[in-house]
Formats: sequence, structure tokens, C-alpha cells
Amino acid sequence: MSETITCRAAIAWKAGEPLSIEDVQVAPPKAGEVRVKIVATGVCHTDAFTLSGDDPEGIFPAILGHEGGGIVESVGEGVTSLQLGDHVIPLYTAECRECKFCKSGKTNLCQAVRETQGKGLMPDGTTRFSQNGKPIFHYMGCSTFSEYTVLPEISLAKVNPTAPLEEVCLLGCGVTTGMGAVMNTAKVQEGDTVAIFGLGGIGLSAVIGAAMAKASRIIAIDINESKFDLAKQLGATDCINPKDYDKPIQEVVVELTDGGVDYSFECIGNVDVMRSALECCHKGWGESVIIGVAGAGQEISTRPFQLVTGRVWRGTAFGGVKGRTELPDYVERYLAGEFKLSDFITHTMALDKINEAFDLMHEGKSIRSVIHY
Amino acid sequence: MSETITCRAAIAWKAGEPLSIEDVQVAPPKAGEVRVKIVATGVCHTDAFTLSGDDPEGIFPAILGHEGGGIVESVGEGVTSLQLGDHVIPLYTAECRECKFCKSGKTNLCQAVRETQGKGLMPDGTTRFSQNGKPIFHYMGCSTFSEYTVLPEISLAKVNPTAPLEEVCLLGCGVTTGMGAVMNTAKVQEGDTVAIFGLGGIGLSAVIGAAMAKASRIIAIDINESKFDLAKQLGATDCINPKDYDKPIQEVVVELTDGGVDYSFECIGNVDVMRSALECCHKGWGESVIIGVAGAGQEISTRPFQLVTGRVWRGTAFGGVKGRTELPDYVERYLAGEFKLSDFITHTMALDKINEAFDLMHEGKSIRSVIHY
Repeated sequence: MSETITCRAAIAWKAGEPLSIEDVQVAPPKAGEVRVKIVATGVCHTDAFTLSGDDPEGIFPAILGHEGGGIVESVGEGVTSLQLGDHVIPLYTAECRECKFCKSGKTNLCQAVRETQGKGLMPDGTTRFSQNGKPIFHYMGCSTFSEYTVLPEISLAKVNPTAPLEEVCLLGCGVTTGMGAVMNTAKVQEGDTVAIFGLGGIGLSAVIGAAMAKASRIIAIDINESKFDLAKQLGATDCINPKDYDKPIQEVVVELTDGGVDYSFECIGNVDVMRSALECCHKGWGESVIIGVAGAGQEISTRPFQLVTGRVWRGTAFGGVKGRTELPDYVERYLAGEFKLSDFITHTMALDKINEAFDLMHEGKSIRSVIHY
Repeated sequence: MSETITCRAAIAWKAGEPLSIEDVQVAPPKAGEVRVKIVATGVCHTDAFTLSGDDPEGIFPAILGHEGGGIVESVGEGVTSLQLGDHVIPLYTAECRECKFCKSGKTNLCQAVRETQGKGLMPDGTTRFSQNGKPIFHYMGCSTFSEYTVLPEISLAKVNPTAPLEEVCLLGCGVTTGMGAVMNTAKVQEGDTVAIFGLGGIGLSAVIGAAMAKASRIIAIDINESKFDLAKQLGATDCINPKDYDKPIQEVVVELTDGGVDYSFECIGNVDVMRSALECCHKGWGESVIIGVAGAGQEISTRPFQLVTGRVWRGTAFGGVKGRTELPDYVERYLAGEFKLSDFITHTMALDKINEAFDLMHEGKSIRSVIHY
């Protein structure tokens, strides 16, 4: 049996305060659990959202981070699919393969550990993190802002060990979410037209996904034009700044595309943009996919006529990707050169600089900062 | 060449007034047009909506009616698919087979005659109806509240002449809309669970469609319990009155179905009910289809989380059915005994009693009144 480890971690003691780099104790994995040495982790807007205090489900003190890559350090009783030394990507959406959701064949939203995960706990209702005996909560079932973390076996994707973890860690959230929304959820086909609202990490990943799907027109939309060069490099055919027009952006897109796009993607979390994204879709068949996460209590609206005349409104979480089954394939496609991840990594830094990563993100200066342990 | 015919019609002179039964002149069909002797027509809520004045696109004076069955009386130049004596159902959604929409394979919303139809005109921009030289507008491209009417060739479905037109006329709107929403738009499969909000003609037709699709659970919802007997007879497994519960009806349905239904259908046109219909769908895959037409300017709303967690919001017009290609099959299935139409016909009357049909509808006493010419 493995022992408790003391290691460095970035602790979120309370909302609205910087993270604090301190020693924590990480207990050994219990039955069905795995302890992972994190090699690298991205810093995502969702971490910032929770840290800000705007996330009504935020729990403190906690160890944030959910976009990591690591190596199995030890396994608990009964773990069969992973062993010491396996390379893994933590999954905030588990895949148990046994619940109603996993068995449905229609969704990636496994519910096996959802309830305890939402409470910052492991499935047995306790935490593996503590400091001097006081528990610290888990976050999104991942807590990658720690040198070591513990996850359920079903919350880890085993990936090709030749893939650099400091890059494929980004497949743990943003990149897979954007690419998956295009390829898994919308199932964009060759020749389709696409509009992508918001060119952060997820939006740019959606651009990549659309290019991989051979969309004929990829319209990238943002009010920050500094994103346009990279968007074009990744495959965007048109880059539009809504501020350049006197009319609603949906009308601009409809005119540009002779009636609207086949698919649109909202990658921001702004409910007004969600409406624009729906309404720029082509009558009769256009589908809009919500990827962004809106603030608590906010609502989307439109005239039902938009739907009655054939548009479809849907959403996606983690790009509709089943983590254990499908994420390893994303890693293989990355290794095969179908897409690059280095374009997304604007900054790399050590754990003790993690608050700078949040600052860069808030200032719009980064796509992704990656922490190397 | 055929001559102008003078016949009886119910004229809507202005919004909010009863229809007036008078003589009108019906000009011969021009090129690509067909003149039809109407044998029977249903009276639909959409006729009443326009007559009330609430329809912002209502145009007067007009000859309403869009749920008819008739026989070709004469054809204009170049008409090849129809000839004298053919039995036809007028289509308010044409099918030209040549426009971008028809060719897409993704929608039934042919746009070929949409613009002129919306203005109460034939495709050449004029009317075939007049009275003493003054034009009277067409309605939804059909105007079945007249003994004779003229339509584009592409707005007529040729159906099996052995089918009784006084019953299959209902396939011109409500029944096809409800059945098609279930079978064409949602593609309900054997064993799926279904909730149907509103048990008017469309909702009851959706119940039939769900029963034909072998749904395992068909939950019929209405605040008018007098509809429940027929709903059960047609295949509903549960009938629910939202007034019997202290909590939102979506919660009731979610509890009844261990998480929500696979498909829901809004058959009323109430934006609050549209929200309930979406939110009673199962997380991960439930789809809600809006069939009802809301009042001008009204909007639907929900939290985007509903979509991000896998629910899908869509709509349908004429049940997604392509009129010339698919409606004849509906008539064949009716003739084969797969469903009955007589259940829907609560009243039959002559044209001069048509205002009584509107009264019965407003009082909730009819499903469909059918006018026999």
C-alpha cells in the first residue's frame, strides 16, 4: 500500500483571493481510485470563474485545476484498467460504462460520480487532500493544481505514453471541448458552413475542428481582433468583428452566407451571443451548439419561430467526448499531426507563478498558460 | 381554356368579424396553376388566429381555410403532374423540388412561392379571387373556404382517389403536423418515452404518431380533462392535468419517468409550456419539438444549462412532411387502417354554418369541424 504524500499545491482558500502555494497531504488511493503525479496542467477560464466567487457551486478551501496530464503513481484496491507508470489525462466527466447515461449511447454525461464530485468529494464522501489534518476539497473531480492528486479510476483516460503531457494536458478540457463540439456533437461534414463566436481556447479549437471536418466556410467572430491572425492560420476563412457593423451580427452572417450557416458555436458563455449564434443559422436545418457556460441564473431567449422554421438549439459538455473511450483517439490524432497544440500554449511557468497565469488570462493576453511541475 | 367561375365562398372582410358567405369570382388557372373544386375543409385554429386580428401577417379581405380536399377542375399551361379529376390536398408548404431548401434533403420548407404566398398572392403577384372586379386575397396559398380555389401545381399533393376527401382533408394540416412531428421530425423509436403538451387536434395526432411509433410511454398533458378519454383511446398511457400538482409540470414528468422523457412536443403555442416541454426532457439526450405557433413577439427562454447538459430544442412546420412526396403515403397508411381520422371530426356542417365552427372551436367543444361543400 502506498503512503500519504506531502507535496506542493496551489490552494484556493477562499473566493476572490490569489491561490497560495503550500504543502498539502495527499492520502493514498482507496478502492477504485488512482493517485496521479501531475506533470503539467492548463489554467482554464472555469478555474478563474470558480475562484472569482461567481460560481454558485464553488466550494472552498479547494485545489482547483482540471486540465492536466500525469503519470499513475499508485492504484487502489480493485483497479484493473490502470497501473503504475501509465500516462493519463484526468476527466471531469467520468465514464463508468455502467450507468444509464453511459449505456444510452447518446451522451457522454456519465453520472456515476457526479453527486460527490459536485460537492468536492471523492465517491466515498471524503477528501484525499488535507493540511495538518484539515480536509481540503477536490475540484471538478480533478484538482490538477497539485503535484499529486487522486481520482476515481473511471475519471482517467489512459493515453499513448509517447505524447508530451505538457501539450496533451490541453485535451483534458478546452481543446477537446471545441473540437468535439464540431466533430462529435454537431458532426460537421465536408462543405458545411460554420460560424464560431469567441476565439478563446475553445473557439480556436472549434476552428481547428471545423478545418479538420473540411468545412467550406469557417467564420470566426470576436471583438478582439488580435485573435484573428491565429484563427486564420488555424483555418478560419473569414474573421469578423461585430463592432464593425451597425446591425446585429446574426444579420451580417446571414448575408455573408446566403441565408445563414449550417452550424454555429457559442464559445463565450454570453447569453446574448447564444441568441445571435442561433439566429445566424440557416432556416430549415441550421444548428447552433452552446459550448460556453453562462453566469448563474442567466437565460437564453429567442422567438420560437426560429425553431419552428427549422433551426435547432443544442449544447455540449466536453465536446460530447467520452473520456476513456474517445480521448485516447484525440491523442493519437494529435500524434499523427492532424492538429497542433503548441499554438494554444502562449505561456509556460512553474506552479509558484500560477497567479500570473490567471492575470494573463484576465487581461486577455494568453490563450493557455501551462504549468509545468 | 377554362372560364371564370362564380361560386360561394366565406369571405373574411376584416379582422375580428364573422365570415360572410357570398359569391366570388374565381379566375381560370394561369400557367403552372391548377383550379380545384373543394369537396371538404377542416377549420383550424390558425384560421381563427388570423381572423382574430392577432396574426401580424393577416391580410384582408381574404378567403381563409387551408385544410382541404378537392378535385382538379382545370389546369393551366404547362401543368404536367396533375389532370382533370385528380384528387388533391392543398399544401400551404409547397414542394417545388428545385429550390435550395427542397434539394437540401434536410427540410420540407420549400421557399419557391413563399414570398407571394405571404402576401396573399399567386406567384405572379395577382389574385385569382375577386368580387365585382375587386381582388380578394388568398390565404396560406390554399383558401379552402371557397367552392373553388386556385393553387400552384407545386402546392398540391395528388392522393389516392379512393380516400374520402371529407376525412383526408385533415391531413392538409393538423393531423399531419402532429403525426409528422413525432415520426418525421423527432423520429421517435420503439420503446421511447414521450410527453405531449396540449390535446387539441395536433396534440391528439401526436399521440397517434407516438402510438404508431410504439413509444413505451405516452404522457398526455392538458388542463382540459375532457380530452383524456380520447387521448387514452388513441394510445396515451398517462393523462395529466398540471392543475392537480403544486409543482411545475416538468418536475412531475421528470419524476414519472425516472429523469425525463426522450421526446416532448408542445402543441399549444404557449411559450411557458414550451419551456416546460424542454425541461421535462431527459438530461443527456431528451429532445423537445415546438409545434404550436406563439403569439407575435413572444419569446421562449430557458437556462442554457438545459442545453449544455444534453437537451435539444427544435421545432417543426407541417410535421416536417414534404407535401407532394410524403403526404400521399400518409393517405395510403390511413387507407390501410393504420390510423383513423373520424375520431377527430366532432362536427360536420355546410359552408353557410362556418361561423358556428369557429364558435365551437373557441368554446373548446370541437376537435375539428369539417365543412362539406
